[in-house]
Amino acid sequence: MFEIISRSEIEKALLDIDLLGEIEQGFAALSLGKAIVPHVSELRLPRGEVHIKSGYIVGDAHFVVKLATGFYGNPARGLASSNGLMLVFDSETGTPAALLLDEGHLTDVRTAVAGAIAAKYLAPSSFSAIGIIGTGTQARLQAEYLALSTTTRQILVYGRNPSHVAAYKSELEKKGFNVRPCNSPGEVAHGARLIVTATPSTQPLLQADDVMPGTHITAVGADSPDKNELDPALFAKANIVVADSKSQCLTQGEILHAMRARTLDATKIRELGSVISKSVAGRTSEQEISIADLTGVAVQDIAIALAVWRIVKGKRS
Amino acid sequence: MFEIISRSEIEKALLDIDLLGEIEQGFAALSLGKAIVPHVSELRLPRGEVHIKSGYIVGDAHFVVKLATGFYGNPARGLASSNGLMLVFDSETGTPAALLLDEGHLTDVRTAVAGAIAAKYLAPSSFSAIGIIGTGTQARLQAEYLALSTTTRQILVYGRNPSHVAAYKSELEKKGFNVRPCNSPGEVAHGARLIVTATPSTQPLLQADDVMPGTHITAVGADSPDKNELDPALFAKANIVVADSKSQCLTQGEILHAMRARTLDATKIRELGSVISKSVAGRTSEQEISIADLTGVAVQDIAIALAVWRIVKGKRS
Repeated sequence: MFEIISRSEIEKALLDIDLLGEIEQGFAALSLGKAIVPHVSELRLPRGEVHIKSGYIVGDAHFVVKLATGFYGNPARGLASSNGLMLVFDSETGTPAALLLDEGHLTDVRTAVAGAIAAKYLAPSSFSAIGIIGTGTQARLQAEYLALSTTTRQILVYGRNPSHVAAYKSELEKKGFNVRPCNSPGEVAHGARLIVTATPSTQPLLQADDVMPGTHITAVGADSPDKNELDPALFAKANIVVADSKSQCLTQGEILHAMRARTLDATKIRELGSVISKSVAGRTSEQEISIADLTGVAVQDIAIALAVWRIVKGKRS
Repeated sequence: MFEIISRSEIEKALLDIDLLGEIEQGFAALSLGKAIVPHVSELRLPRGEVHIKSGYIVGDAHFVVKLATGFYGNPARGLASSNGLMLVFDSETGTPAALLLDEGHLTDVRTAVAGAIAAKYLAPSSFSAIGIIGTGTQARLQAEYLALSTTTRQILVYGRNPSHVAAYKSELEKKGFNVRPCNSPGEVAHGARLIVTATPSTQPLLQADDVMPGTHITAVGADSPDKNELDPALFAKANIVVADSKSQCLTQGEILHAMRARTLDATKIRELGSVISKSVAGRTSEQEISIADLTGVAVQDIAIALAVWRIVKGKRS
């Protein structure tokens, strides 16, 4: 029986899932070498691009294929620029089991949950404000999903566009946050010990000199080799550098830029899954500076898709 | 509106499609450089494998992603070893438009139609028998779909397993063919001027000395670098060598083996789409020996998926 699962069913199912636990298990499997993940396939069209990720965690009864589209002229047509779907297959027979018509929402959520996981293992034990650089969908979801691992509801936000900042403040305050706009990334860094950068910037926004001791930074914006949110000099200053996938971060994201600038030695990079499974340490003192570079990996898609599918299947049967 | 299309709807739609014309246009677009086709992504699991192909023909309103699975323990469970599905997306916005739950049938059909196209452009103008080496699904479909381009109904078949040969004869005779089993590939080659090899063999079955002047051979079995149906020496004897995709045939299939054996010079290889669009010649005399090496390309998937979808959409609206 092949099941089609709509976005509204997916959104309901997400409320019943231990997202932190499920996605932590995915990262741990990746770092233990238990994930089979082929290279991402990319189809470039005149008006957009399609990324195809697939993967299997050894021992799972199912594997997952994800198609994510980005068409940057869509907002002018009143459509979201991102769309996509996920497919679940039986790993014993290859039989298609389910189509999740999530419109890219599960990618947004699993990316935000990874930020909450990074904060759980790497942020200092207490801090008065969360710093957010960026005002888009991911800047909003990162703040919201941080509630999975922190109790802080004070946000310092920086965005280039004042009307986007105002919309961000209004939306997050409806969700119970207190939001204070800042005039620069530096102002955010002075006031927040947990900072999330979530922009498509190709120039570093967060400068090394602005970051205070005892700060954790999660960078989620750089999903291609040209993007760069963090000053490469920050990596020389950091005590802890964590990648979602070490091999992937050497080819894209903040770590790539730091390696090119020779401010980071590859041996310093720890993998998030290894921190989760405690085979390497996370933060060990309140004064350390830590960075998590999250470029997005297929194990997150596998974990969230299979968790959603289990819930929906249970409700339907 | 996202449409789900079942296998039975797909089978009905196929009856209303000019398969030869649609797939010829796909090959022609490929050879004209009008197809955007990323590398095939391959996920290997303990019990099977998944191939993900995607592609776009410049100017089309839609693009296609195909997932094809092969799980070789399935027959022992009473399931087909192959399965799969195709997805159609809007090429302006990336919005998913349709899911074709074809279970791999469209791949079988587009492979068989490519054989009919090769025969149309390369087979001698008249011949009394079609030779088929192999007795599986593709050996059956190649014979059936050759009706799109030939009137010959006499088949000479060779297979290693006598019970499979008997089943093949029985099934094809129900469809109006006259089938004569042969004791060797050589016996097939002596009696047939159009030969199709459709086996998963890793050792050459058809020897150069057995092939008579005025013969066309289509090889469809070799879909990976280790497979090989044709004696490499046959390429030295052939007047015309045609590849579905020149670049792909240099990395898998019969042409790869001939290149390795140094019996074929790469400059001799013509592309099927160029023969179709008449930018290079096909067969020019009745005495020539021609070979078509068909490894399977995404333009075939794009062409058949979009044609099926147009028919189904028309019926539903």
